[in-house]
Amino acid sequence: MQAPVFPKPYSCVSARDVSGKGGADVESFSTPPDAMRREHTALMEPLIRLTAHDMEHVNGLILSRTGSDVAMIPEVANHLISSGGKRLRPMLTLATALMFGYEGDGHVKLAAAVEFMHTATLLHDDVVDESDMRRGRVAARVNWGNEASVLVGDFLLGQAFKMMVEVGSLTALYILSTAAAVIAEGEVMQLAAAKNIATTPEDYFAVIRAKTAQLFSAACAVGPVIAGRPEADHNACALFGLNLGTAFQLVDDVLDYGGASTTLGKNVGDDLREGKMTLPAVLCILEATDQERDFWVRVMEEGDLQDGDFTEARRLMDKYRALERTVEEARRYADAASAALLACPANPVRDALASTVEFCIRRAS
Amino acid sequence: MQAPVFPKPYSCVSARDVSGKGGADVESFSTPPDAMRREHTALMEPLIRLTAHDMEHVNGLILSRTGSDVAMIPEVANHLISSGGKRLRPMLTLATALMFGYEGDGHVKLAAAVEFMHTATLLHDDVVDESDMRRGRVAARVNWGNEASVLVGDFLLGQAFKMMVEVGSLTALYILSTAAAVIAEGEVMQLAAAKNIATTPEDYFAVIRAKTAQLFSAACAVGPVIAGRPEADHNACALFGLNLGTAFQLVDDVLDYGGASTTLGKNVGDDLREGKMTLPAVLCILEATDQERDFWVRVMEEGDLQDGDFTEARRLMDKYRALERTVEEARRYADAASAALLACPANPVRDALASTVEFCIRRAS
Repeated sequence: MQAPVFPKPYSCVSARDVSGKGGADVESFSTPPDAMRREHTALMEPLIRLTAHDMEHVNGLILSRTGSDVAMIPEVANHLISSGGKRLRPMLTLATALMFGYEGDGHVKLAAAVEFMHTATLLHDDVVDESDMRRGRVAARVNWGNEASVLVGDFLLGQAFKMMVEVGSLTALYILSTAAAVIAEGEVMQLAAAKNIATTPEDYFAVIRAKTAQLFSAACAVGPVIAGRPEADHNACALFGLNLGTAFQLVDDVLDYGGASTTLGKNVGDDLREGKMTLPAVLCILEATDQERDFWVRVMEEGDLQDGDFTEARRLMDKYRALERTVEEARRYADAASAALLACPANPVRDALASTVEFCIRRAS
Repeated sequence: MQAPVFPKPYSCVSARDVSGKGGADVESFSTPPDAMRREHTALMEPLIRLTAHDMEHVNGLILSRTGSDVAMIPEVANHLISSGGKRLRPMLTLATALMFGYEGDGHVKLAAAVEFMHTATLLHDDVVDESDMRRGRVAARVNWGNEASVLVGDFLLGQAFKMMVEVGSLTALYILSTAAAVIAEGEVMQLAAAKNIATTPEDYFAVIRAKTAQLFSAACAVGPVIAGRPEADHNACALFGLNLGTAFQLVDDVLDYGGASTTLGKNVGDDLREGKMTLPAVLCILEATDQERDFWVRVMEEGDLQDGDFTEARRLMDKYRALERTVEEARRYADAASAALLACPANPVRDALASTVEFCIRRAS
């Protein structure tokens, strides 16, 4: 079995790659026409179909495990959970178990646990970012306060661990608890990098690897673990998830500057408003003129956002092909994810996962 | 083995018990003279001595597991961890393992995990309470912001679970992950009860059982678990911890109205300032005249604290013997804790735990 080559984090986004190239058409990153969107969604269809039966059980479990006599807990949890996240992560857990022929029901609990870990992170994230919106709805912290978001997040984390323990696989527990610690580490890293225009591509990749890719990786690795497969299969799936998660986050960060809020359920421009240093901005700042640098300092570091700043940011991203180059980078990670899948058994589930990789990338176009 | 009777949560604090009784001398709840304090501390000495060797390893582990390349993590974690908490909870884990003759080193990791769970709770608590002080020092959130407190708490929780997984006992994992969910539930319950003078003794006991006693209980139960003892022993230790934790919290809540800040490292009057409905206030409100009720509404619900309000609160607690009755309640739980110990092997560790129960109660006098 040949291990897929793990891409170097930012080699293809160095300045020399773009010298002499013209600006990209930023329009290509705006809302895709309906037909395109349908085509993209069709790429997710095989995964959704193959996991549909198990996802019903996951959704039932999510509902029952957010239950509590303390009324505020189901209120806050379901406000976020019912707001229509894609539930990609739990689907990945189900799929990677099914791909290896798993026939038990432990994957359902692990999938619900993964979704709870993700939801807890979002609740805590909103407190950290002081976000007012999440998935196109008012953030929980706005309705119930920061306190509730912190504590309900803690409750969901506790429930996640309980479900993992019930499944009884120490290896799965090790993978997911390690992910929990790494995710929190990544969040703190991001906090330190926030509003800091000296953030390098390395810093950025370290953050998204820890805070996004790690949970994708763990979500995928526990599938072959409970299917009783050898470590090589855990590693193949972990690598698949790590690369897919990285590609997914890169595309998310592109969409924040050019995507359609109807697709994402997230307001375009959030990252600029919050001074979040994502790769498109990092790439622009690396090559900025003195005047452009002043712009980024004002917007990102001083948080002094004025009318027309988003358009200006988009113009600069156009000038430096920052969105295109970020998508190119995402494509490299997506290719590495697909390569990792080749080490897994060829079957319809594997095909569905390959198609999901394509979906994640095509969202950006 | 006779199971110790678990005390009814608030039977002895009903109004009829105090009718006709005169006011207590509130001075008995203020700073104990040095000699008394030394005597109390001596009660902890056997536990400290018997766990000293293992606690060195626990402290080393705490230090190494707060390490991270992300500089803010050890900074925030150690600000709180080094601020001189009593580390009573990890000592209980060590002691309950030793009491059953455990000879491995898993208890050290479990003890460190318990302390991390506790520290994470404190970090998140401070965000929820908007506290400025913790253990006599500036709260972490004041120096590093709410974000850092939330995220470093998450990191510590992740590390706690990693350590538990490394120990490899699914039963210990089950007990501690259940505690994590219950603690968060208790915190949300407290949030709902905060600033609400309709809080009943039942509400209060439900909160402290979930948010304090549950971790004491789990900390004690995992000792016999990793010592490979049968379930009856887990239950005896769980009951011991639950009752001890309840007594401990009741005394803490008394000290907040009358204890010495040098003993507690906590400012007297915090609960009044934060509108936290602890038993001493609940007892006063249950029997309050209309005028007294107006006082509690203004202070607790409206948060309109004026000069002399603390003295007035103390006067009312004197009138209704609220602090004394809370200590009496604590004593009942302490007795139940001691009774639970009788089901455990008679040895110096058991004696040290019995002495620790006495210590927890005597702090209030």
